[in-house]
Amino acid sequence: MIKERIDALRRRMSEWGWDAAVTVGEDPHNSEYTPKRWCQREFISGFTGSAGVVIITASHAGLWTDSRYWIQAARELEGSGMELHKMVSVEDKDWITWIADNISPGGKVGIDGLCMSMNEALQLEKALVGKSASVISKPDYLEALWPDRALLPQGKVWLHDDRYAGRSRADKISWLRGELEGMDCRYMFLNCLDQIAWLLNIRSDDVEYCPFVISFALVGPECVWLFAENSKFGADVMSALEKDNVKVMPYSECGKFVGSLKASDRILIDAGSLNYETGRAIADSFGRENTVQGDSPVEVAKSVKNEVERDGFRKAYVQDGIVQTRFFKWLEEEVKSGHRVTESDAADRLHELRAAMPDFLDESFETISAYGRNAALPHYTTVRGKDALIEPHGLYLNDSGAHYRYGTTDITRTVPMGPLTDLEREDYTLDMMAMIDLAMAVFPEGTPGCRIDAIARRPLWQNMRNFGHGTGHGVGNVLSVHEGPQSIRQNLKNQPLLPGMITSDEPGIYREGYHGIRHENMIMCVPAGENEFGRWLSFETLTMTYLDTSPLLVKLMDRRELEWLNDFNKRVFDTLKPYLNEDEVEWLDAKTAAVSVG
Amino acid sequence: MIKERIDALRRRMSEWGWDAAVTVGEDPHNSEYTPKRWCQREFISGFTGSAGVVIITASHAGLWTDSRYWIQAARELEGSGMELHKMVSVEDKDWITWIADNISPGGKVGIDGLCMSMNEALQLEKALVGKSASVISKPDYLEALWPDRALLPQGKVWLHDDRYAGRSRADKISWLRGELEGMDCRYMFLNCLDQIAWLLNIRSDDVEYCPFVISFALVGPECVWLFAENSKFGADVMSALEKDNVKVMPYSECGKFVGSLKASDRILIDAGSLNYETGRAIADSFGRENTVQGDSPVEVAKSVKNEVERDGFRKAYVQDGIVQTRFFKWLEEEVKSGHRVTESDAADRLHELRAAMPDFLDESFETISAYGRNAALPHYTTVRGKDALIEPHGLYLNDSGAHYRYGTTDITRTVPMGPLTDLEREDYTLDMMAMIDLAMAVFPEGTPGCRIDAIARRPLWQNMRNFGHGTGHGVGNVLSVHEGPQSIRQNLKNQPLLPGMITSDEPGIYREGYHGIRHENMIMCVPAGENEFGRWLSFETLTMTYLDTSPLLVKLMDRRELEWLNDFNKRVFDTLKPYLNEDEVEWLDAKTAAVSVG
Repeated sequence: MIKERIDALRRRMSEWGWDAAVTVGEDPHNSEYTPKRWCQREFISGFTGSAGVVIITASHAGLWTDSRYWIQAARELEGSGMELHKMVSVEDKDWITWIADNISPGGKVGIDGLCMSMNEALQLEKALVGKSASVISKPDYLEALWPDRALLPQGKVWLHDDRYAGRSRADKISWLRGELEGMDCRYMFLNCLDQIAWLLNIRSDDVEYCPFVISFALVGPECVWLFAENSKFGADVMSALEKDNVKVMPYSECGKFVGSLKASDRILIDAGSLNYETGRAIADSFGRENTVQGDSPVEVAKSVKNEVERDGFRKAYVQDGIVQTRFFKWLEEEVKSGHRVTESDAADRLHELRAAMPDFLDESFETISAYGRNAALPHYTTVRGKDALIEPHGLYLNDSGAHYRYGTTDITRTVPMGPLTDLEREDYTLDMMAMIDLAMAVFPEGTPGCRIDAIARRPLWQNMRNFGHGTGHGVGNVLSVHEGPQSIRQNLKNQPLLPGMITSDEPGIYREGYHGIRHENMIMCVPAGENEFGRWLSFETLTMTYLDTSPLLVKLMDRRELEWLNDFNKRVFDTLKPYLNEDEVEWLDAKTAAVSVG
Repeated sequence: MIKERIDALRRRMSEWGWDAAVTVGEDPHNSEYTPKRWCQREFISGFTGSAGVVIITASHAGLWTDSRYWIQAARELEGSGMELHKMVSVEDKDWITWIADNISPGGKVGIDGLCMSMNEALQLEKALVGKSASVISKPDYLEALWPDRALLPQGKVWLHDDRYAGRSRADKISWLRGELEGMDCRYMFLNCLDQIAWLLNIRSDDVEYCPFVISFALVGPECVWLFAENSKFGADVMSALEKDNVKVMPYSECGKFVGSLKASDRILIDAGSLNYETGRAIADSFGRENTVQGDSPVEVAKSVKNEVERDGFRKAYVQDGIVQTRFFKWLEEEVKSGHRVTESDAADRLHELRAAMPDFLDESFETISAYGRNAALPHYTTVRGKDALIEPHGLYLNDSGAHYRYGTTDITRTVPMGPLTDLEREDYTLDMMAMIDLAMAVFPEGTPGCRIDAIARRPLWQNMRNFGHGTGHGVGNVLSVHEGPQSIRQNLKNQPLLPGMITSDEPGIYREGYHGIRHENMIMCVPAGENEFGRWLSFETLTMTYLDTSPLLVKLMDRRELEWLNDFNKRVFDTLKPYLNEDEVEWLDAKTAAVSVG
C-alpha cells in the first residue's frame, strides 16, 4: 500500500514539476501530539514513530529518523521500498544536507508549508541556494491521494472557568497587550494550541490527552481573532468570547485574513513554532521589517501558576492520591491472593477509579502499566493480548496522569509485588535518593533547570548508573502534560526556574531484560527566603501518593533523605485519611509507617 | 595628569579627523595579564582594573566597566573629568551602543587595531553602519603622547624540556598539521601566547607570573614562522628551533610578512582572540574565502595533560605540600608565641620557603595573604604598610602557587589562628563539604563542567550560602595558572571534561566585614570505569597539603565526606613524611589525625 502511495505521489510530482517532496509530519501548530488528520508521515511511509522526515524523489524514497526509532523504523519500512537514513539526534538536519547534495541544479523541492515550521523551511531554502534550487509550498499536497483523510477535529469548545484559571480572559489579553507594547508591537500571532487555550480560557477534546482547541489566534490592539470551526462553539461560549471582543473566524480563513490586513504596525511571531505558510502571509501583510521574531510572552506566563492554579494543582494531587491508594491496595491484594492480573487489567482498573472521581476530565497521557522487564523499555505501550501477567515477585511500574477541572497530574510509582533481587532493591533505593535529593534542593534565584539536574543524578552517578531521559518537564494546567519553557535536564538551556513553575521530578534506572524503576513526584518552585547571599528558591512537593519503603536499603541513604521520606509519607497519610474508608486507612497507615532513621 | 593626556589625545584626534577614540586595554595577544607596554587603558584613564573600555570624544570622556569595579573606578576616576558608565556584566557591549547612538553621521571612530580583537572590531563596525560611520585602525595611536611607554618585554627564551613537556616540538607540530589537514587547511595563525609556548616548548619571563614568549606564530605546511625579538634567543634555543624548521622573524614584521604571503591555501584563525590588524592582514593575503574561523585545536590539546605532565604535576604538588607544611607550622608557632606577623610577613615567608625548593621557577600569581575580614574581599591585594596583623584568633586565608619545571600549582588553605566563632566554624565546615563533594564526584563521559558545578555548591545552597566566582578553572603546565577551555562554573558552556584535564576545586564563603573562607585543591579528570550505562569519569586530587580538621562541625558532614577527608589527610602525611624533619613530622602527624566517623 505504501508503495502505491509513493507511486501516486510521484505521478503528482511530475505534474507539479517537483524533483523532491518533503513530509516532516508536523501539524500546523507544531504540536507534541499530532491529530490523525496531520499524520502525513505515517500515511506516506507507514512509520509510526513521533519524529522523522520523509523525502520522495523520482528515484529515491527515504525516511530520516533518530536512534530512538532505528529498530522500529527498520521493521515498519520493510517491503515499502523506502530506505532508512539514520540520524544521531532528533535535532540533526541530515535530510536537508541530503537534498542539497542530491537535487539537480535549478530543481524544485515541494513541501506542505502549513505543516513545516518557518525556521525549518528557511533552513531548507538556504541550503538550496548553492544549487539555485527552490522550495515550493503546496499546503495539504498529500490530500489528493488520501480520500479517507481525517477531517479537522470536531470537538466542542468549553470554558475553562475563572475559578480554575485564576485569571480572566480579559485580564490575560490586556496583560499581553501591555507586553507587546513593551516590545513596540501592536499585534501578535499565536499558533501554539496550548498558548491559545491558556490566553482565552477555552478547552475542547480536539486533541487526545490535550484539551486544546484546534485554532490560530491573532491578537490586535482592539480585538482578538480566533480562527476555529464555527460548529465547535455553543451559544454560551460564543457570547463569553464576544463579551471580551474575541471574534471567531473560520479556521481555513486564517491565512487569507492575516494576508489582507496590510497593517503598518509591528507584529510579534515565534518563528520556531509558526508554520511557513502563515509566516509568509504575515510577512507579506505586515512587511518584513515590521515582523518581529521573538519568544511568546505567553510561554513563560502560562508556566508560572497563579495562586488559584497552585491550589487547584494541590487539590488534583489529593484526588490522585486517593485513586492511587485504592489502586495499589487493590493490585497488591489481587496479586497476593493469586488472581490473574495483566498489565492491561491494571491500567483499566486505574482508569475506572480515576474516572469515578468528581471533576475528572480525561487522562493526561496514555498510562504506562509495565511489569518486570517491560518497565525497562523506554517507550513501552501496554497492548491487551501482548501484555504481561503481573506475578507475585519483582517490580511493577505505573506512570499515569489525569486532567481534573483544576489541575493536571502525572505520577509514576514503582512498587514491589513480592520478593525482590538485591539489584532491584539497590536500584530502587538509589533512584529514590535521586528523587528526594532534587525535591529537597535549595538554589539561588535565576538558576536554570539544567544546572540542578546533576543534584538528582548524583546518587546514581556515584554508583555509575544513569538514565537517558530528562529529569523534569513542565506540566500545564488542563493543557499539555509536557510544557515548556522550563525543564530539568542535561541539555544546556538558560531558562531560570521561577516561583510557581511546576515540574516533574522523575529519575529512573532501566536494565534491559531485567527491570525498570522510576519514582516521579511533581514539584513546584517556591521562594525559600532571602539573605545576604541573595534570594533563594526550593520546591514544594505536590504529589500526595505514598512511597513504598519496604524495598529500601536504608543504609545507603543519609539522615536527611530518610527524614524527608518519613515526613512525606506522614503528610500523605494525614492528608488522605479523611477521604478513605477504614480498610484503606489501615492499609495506608502500614504503607506510610516511618523508617527508622537510626 | 589624566586630564592633560586626554587633552593631548583630543588634539591628535582632530589632526587625524577622528570623532571618537576607543581604548579597550587589551594586548595584541588577548592575554589575561597585560604587560606594562600595553596598559593603555590605565595610561589614558588612571583606572587600574582588569576590564573596561575608554571612549574619548571632543565633548565626552568615559569609562565603561562592570560591577566588580564600580567602587574602585569611581575612586580612581575622581578629578580626571572622566565619567563612569556602569555595565552589568563584563560581556556587555553598552559602549558600542553608546558610540552608535552618539556618533555623527559619517563620523570616524579610531581604534588601536593591534589591541582589539577582530570580533570586537567587527561588532563595532557593524553597529556604525546605520550612521554611515567607520572604524579607523591606527596601531599604537597613544604612543605619540607616551614618551616613557615601556618597551617590548626583553625576557630570554628557554626551552621547556621534553622531560617535562612529555612530547617533542616536532611531534606537536606534526600533530597540528594533521589536525589542520582534517579541516582542509594548510596554515594556521597562532596569537595566544600560551598556545605558542605549548606548541614550541619554549618559555621566558616576558609576562609576570606567566612564562610566555611575546610572539606570534604562523604554522605552514613546511615550516613554522615565530615572530619574536631576535635578542631573546640564545644560540642553543635558536639551534633547537632551527632543527625543527621553526624560523625566527622580528616581532614587528609579523603583519607585513603574513600580508605578503599571498598563498592560495586555506588558513585557520581564531577570530575571538586574534587582533583586528593581524586578522585583516591575513584576510587580505589569503583571501576572505580561504580564511577559516574556528577554535584552535591547540586549546584542547594543551589542556589534556599527557602521562609525563600528569607525573610532573603530582611531583609539583608534593613540593608544594612540603613548602606549605613548613609555612603553616611556622605561622602557627609564630602567632601562638606572640610574635608580630603581618599578612606581608607571611607572604614573604611563604615565598622564601618556595624559592628554596629545587626546580622552583616563579610564583604562578600574586599571593593572597589575608587575615580576618580582609579574606572576605574578592580582589584583596596584600600591600605592606596597609596590611593586617595576624592575631591569635579567627581565620587566615592563603591563596598562592608556583611554577616548578614540571608543573604549576595553585592552592588555597584557610586555617584557624586560635578560637573561632560558631559562624566561622559552620562556614568552614560547609565549604569543606562543598570541596569534598566535587572531589568525590563521578559523572558520565561528555559532561561539561557547568553541569557538575551544582554538586560543589549543594552543601552551601542547602544552607543558603553561595559564592560569586567560578568553582574551578583549568591550569596550564608552566603556562597560565588560568587556562581554558574547560571550567567548572555557573555559565553554561558545552566543553566536556576530558581525562587529563586539570581543574581547581575552590568553593568559598565570604562575609564582608567578618571573614572569608576558601578551600582549594587541584583535581585531575580520570577514567572511572565503564558499564552498561556508559563510560564514567571522576577526579584524582593532586594537592598534597593537609586540610585542618580542628574547626569542623563534624555533625554536619556525612560519612562519605569524613572518610574522604581522613583518607586525604593520611595520604598527605604518608607522602610528605620522607621529606620532613622530625619536628615537622610530629606536627603534621597531629594535623592529619583522623576525625572520628562515628
